[in-house]
Amino acid sequence: MLTRIDHIGIACHDLDTTVEFYRATYGFEVFHTEVNEEQGVREAMLKINGTSDGGASYLQLLEPTREDSAVGKWLAKNGEGVHHIAFGTADVDADAADIREKGVRVLYDEPRRGSMGSRITFLHPKDCHGVLTELVTSAAVESPEH
Amino acid sequence: MLTRIDHIGIACHDLDTTVEFYRATYGFEVFHTEVNEEQGVREAMLKINGTSDGGASYLQLLEPTREDSAVGKWLAKNGEGVHHIAFGTADVDADAADIREKGVRVLYDEPRRGSMGSRITFLHPKDCHGVLTELVTSAAVESPEH
Repeated sequence: MLTRIDHIGIACHDLDTTVEFYRATYGFEVFHTEVNEEQGVREAMLKINGTSDGGASYLQLLEPTREDSAVGKWLAKNGEGVHHIAFGTADVDADAADIREKGVRVLYDEPRRGSMGSRITFLHPKDCHGVLTELVTSAAVESPEH
Repeated sequence: MLTRIDHIGIACHDLDTTVEFYRATYGFEVFHTEVNEEQGVREAMLKINGTSDGGASYLQLLEPTREDSAVGKWLAKNGEGVHHIAFGTADVDADAADIREKGVRVLYDEPRRGSMGSRITFLHPKDCHGVLTELVTSAAVESPEH
């Protein structure tokens, strides 16, 4: 079951400049940074609020590490902006299987590594009314929704 | 101070079909619907989770009521997808004034009526790394972040 907005993924040309924009304009601070070579991105997670399922909602700022990465190609076509949205779940495997059975294309056969040790998969935007949609299970143990 | 992701605004051609997609695929239910003639949209709010500032995070599905509305023009150009993101604050007037002073263009002189009696304004996407960004103060009294 999807129990929160986990993050909004925002593609940018320059991570440092964009992080500084969010800090100076809104006061949002960097919670975590990492490079994900598999996804071809350098990223910063800005924690915005805690959520009622015991998790949190973040902005995820994404700079491509190579032009031929998915985010690099997307940026070249669309320019900076919202790249995807992500819902948090305690069991990405079960939700991905359930959603695949409903006829929505799930992009990975098995979940892959996402930010902060999470396990993630993506749903095809053409099956989701134009929205590239990610499902995330955090590395930390999640409590049920309360 | 911005204390939560209030909602993600998603533009769609047909509200009923899109609401049904989110219900059937993820189990998200409609929390509220309304027509905002000023904004030229018919909308459905799907509540996803509560937030640590005492508010909540929603998906806001938006169908234009006329082609020459902002969302109607955006849809014609971009197709369905994420139209804007919104941050919640207890004081949209103070935050809008503060952000304007930092050189970011605020689109309204005074906040206007948003979903569920909220007061809203928008920041120019060209000043926000491509992201149309809304600031929202809910109609209900908000508690400080805890």
